[in-house]
Amino acid sequence: MLAPVFPMNLIEQEVSADRWIDIPEEVLHILYRWRPSPLKRAVYLEEYLKTPARIYYKDESYSPPGSHKPNTAVAQAWYNKQFGIEKLTTETGAGQWGSALAFACNLLGLECKVFMVRISFDQKPFRKTMMQVWGANCIASPSTQTNAGRKVLEEMPDTPGSLGIAISEAIEEAVTDKSGKTRYSLGSVLNHVLLHQTIIGLEAKKQLEIAGEKLPDVVIGCAGGGSNFAGLAFPFTLDKIHGADIQIMPTEPVACPTMTRAPFAYDFGDTACTTPLLAMYTLGHAFIPPPIHAGGLRYHGMAPLVCQCIIEGLFEPRSFHQLKCYESALTWAQTEGAICAPETSHAVAAAIDEAVKAKEEGKEKVILFNYSGHGLMDLTGYDAFLSGELCDYSLPDEDLEKFTAELASLPKAEMRKSGKW
Amino acid sequence: MLAPVFPMNLIEQEVSADRWIDIPEEVLHILYRWRPSPLKRAVYLEEYLKTPARIYYKDESYSPPGSHKPNTAVAQAWYNKQFGIEKLTTETGAGQWGSALAFACNLLGLECKVFMVRISFDQKPFRKTMMQVWGANCIASPSTQTNAGRKVLEEMPDTPGSLGIAISEAIEEAVTDKSGKTRYSLGSVLNHVLLHQTIIGLEAKKQLEIAGEKLPDVVIGCAGGGSNFAGLAFPFTLDKIHGADIQIMPTEPVACPTMTRAPFAYDFGDTACTTPLLAMYTLGHAFIPPPIHAGGLRYHGMAPLVCQCIIEGLFEPRSFHQLKCYESALTWAQTEGAICAPETSHAVAAAIDEAVKAKEEGKEKVILFNYSGHGLMDLTGYDAFLSGELCDYSLPDEDLEKFTAELASLPKAEMRKSGKW
Repeated sequence: MLAPVFPMNLIEQEVSADRWIDIPEEVLHILYRWRPSPLKRAVYLEEYLKTPARIYYKDESYSPPGSHKPNTAVAQAWYNKQFGIEKLTTETGAGQWGSALAFACNLLGLECKVFMVRISFDQKPFRKTMMQVWGANCIASPSTQTNAGRKVLEEMPDTPGSLGIAISEAIEEAVTDKSGKTRYSLGSVLNHVLLHQTIIGLEAKKQLEIAGEKLPDVVIGCAGGGSNFAGLAFPFTLDKIHGADIQIMPTEPVACPTMTRAPFAYDFGDTACTTPLLAMYTLGHAFIPPPIHAGGLRYHGMAPLVCQCIIEGLFEPRSFHQLKCYESALTWAQTEGAICAPETSHAVAAAIDEAVKAKEEGKEKVILFNYSGHGLMDLTGYDAFLSGELCDYSLPDEDLEKFTAELASLPKAEMRKSGKW
Repeated sequence: MLAPVFPMNLIEQEVSADRWIDIPEEVLHILYRWRPSPLKRAVYLEEYLKTPARIYYKDESYSPPGSHKPNTAVAQAWYNKQFGIEKLTTETGAGQWGSALAFACNLLGLECKVFMVRISFDQKPFRKTMMQVWGANCIASPSTQTNAGRKVLEEMPDTPGSLGIAISEAIEEAVTDKSGKTRYSLGSVLNHVLLHQTIIGLEAKKQLEIAGEKLPDVVIGCAGGGSNFAGLAFPFTLDKIHGADIQIMPTEPVACPTMTRAPFAYDFGDTACTTPLLAMYTLGHAFIPPPIHAGGLRYHGMAPLVCQCIIEGLFEPRSFHQLKCYESALTWAQTEGAICAPETSHAVAAAIDEAVKAKEEGKEKVILFNYSGHGLMDLTGYDAFLSGELCDYSLPDEDLEKFTAELASLPKAEMRKSGKW
């Protein structure tokens, strides 16, 4: 089923049962442009919080597109090229993923077309320019260029768009290319994407050792589709399975509470119901989250591998309100100096909470979080926050019920109860 | 004369005849947040150009504000604080300097007010947000908050502004504070600013050695006021004086040809004629350059120390058109991956020219340039370039004559002829 969408070599990775899959030499060579990413200690934040905790963060903002996304973009572009593919399509929320794929396609000589969620397209026009600088074609979604896009526009002409809709458009553009030289590329959720990101956690482990630390006590990452979180967390999850006492914490917006409030069910990955069903916590494929600035966290589902770990009690998801996240981001900028992405602020908020807790408990905890990207392209949100124009959003129970009601009628919905798939 | 404007400890640096002035331990401690900045080799650009030259660049974009400017901002904020100053005022063109001073003042607990040249304020709204994130107050110049600003607005209500005007406003705001706790801070031009930036060249020298290189054959930096260029070039200039064969090249826009076409004369540093006279190449303090996107290179004058070296034949200035610079920046982004500031593109263009020349000559030259800042906040210019909306500007001879005509009537204008001061 996946063959028209992805190249077979990536599908083989998607379903592989191997514990280790080596990074091809050529991919490594490209990743060396900015990797290993630095592991830093947030000494100034520690000082400010007067916490006994030692706060480390893996700085993924060092890649040219400014986030962890190129780790998988480069790998995917390379595997597609190996398979003879000449053009990749994708969707993007905040623009981090789209620009990462544009960057990777430019390096590997592939054509690239990006459907960008309209609200982000409008809020972050410079991400579009960034993609164009790297030679990609970026358009707002829903667009009039696909059936999926036209259908949504007809029903909801003023929609802010969603990742689900944009995914439908990008997949349609790929599978309808009769030359067979176009495939779709997904920036998160799937197994092979999470696999490519584990370089983050593997590096962090070695770097913590160099810094004289053993295993961390707390591992934190924000999770929209789950890939930056899983990239850092999975290598430590194995330690936890083997008995290490590690608290592993994916964080999400209260406005889009996939892990903290949604049912576990089989659902489509996109709004137009074109993907195979995925077993995951899901707010329903028709869910359109409120316009929070953390565009990368506005997805209705979550990586199945992350969900399974939650079910097995390995992860403890948390949700945070937008205003608290921006407050944390401001504290971060004024102590550590750097300006983080609104998505990343959901990890910063949790790290601050945990550091304060360590202070209250008088414990010398080691906190590690993924600094998934910088916020230099996302200053619209900071401006709105500083001007007092932002608000918090909660999802009313009745809306949650409405959006998830039809999940029960999907095939294999009974799997939800067993928590196995 | 300088005492109401700068603290005495910085004035002492400005007029110091010492060859070396140590960096205070506390300043170093803050610079360690991002220094030493990486020295990188542009292997992908070399490959693309098929040049025998080895192209190195000092990556100053790694600081949180994204440029070399914090090197002096931190030092200046620290010396002001030592002197009991509680608030700094400044001007900013592209916004790089304003955000650097906001960053430094935030770290050292000083108040900060920034007058931003209106055209940049409008073109780069996110720089303002960045300054606000670090707690600074940023307003468009000319403003109605100073006599200097009001006077300009009366005469030219639609002016895009200029660095000269903004300097006048910032100085007025500082010297009219009756508490005596406010001073002005300049991001370039002056001796102490250039001194603070020499950490760039000193680091580069050691890093080149680690990379197995001797002295570079060509040293390049873009020059608006001259500080990033001088910061890299001065440590190598000493080698050149001692006989080393190094070509040292400050680069500027054809639209604002201070070093390549302007007369050497005493002139004011600002439009309102409030600064002491500086001996420099100058287009006249009333010069308002065309609205090129490299806002940091739109200054009528040039650091006196840089000018003196040009007169003594140590430096070979070059000028580049805007379109060629953006083409070079695009080549850079598509080979090396990163997106450079429009100012920096004037160094990239020269580095590419020199690498092509080395190829034509079949010479294995070592080219070193200063990558003064990233362009992530400057994508408006890239967008305009990609949309074909940008053009080149040349300064007609009659305009050059008009703007520089009154220089002869300024006191000490005769010094121009001797080239000594």
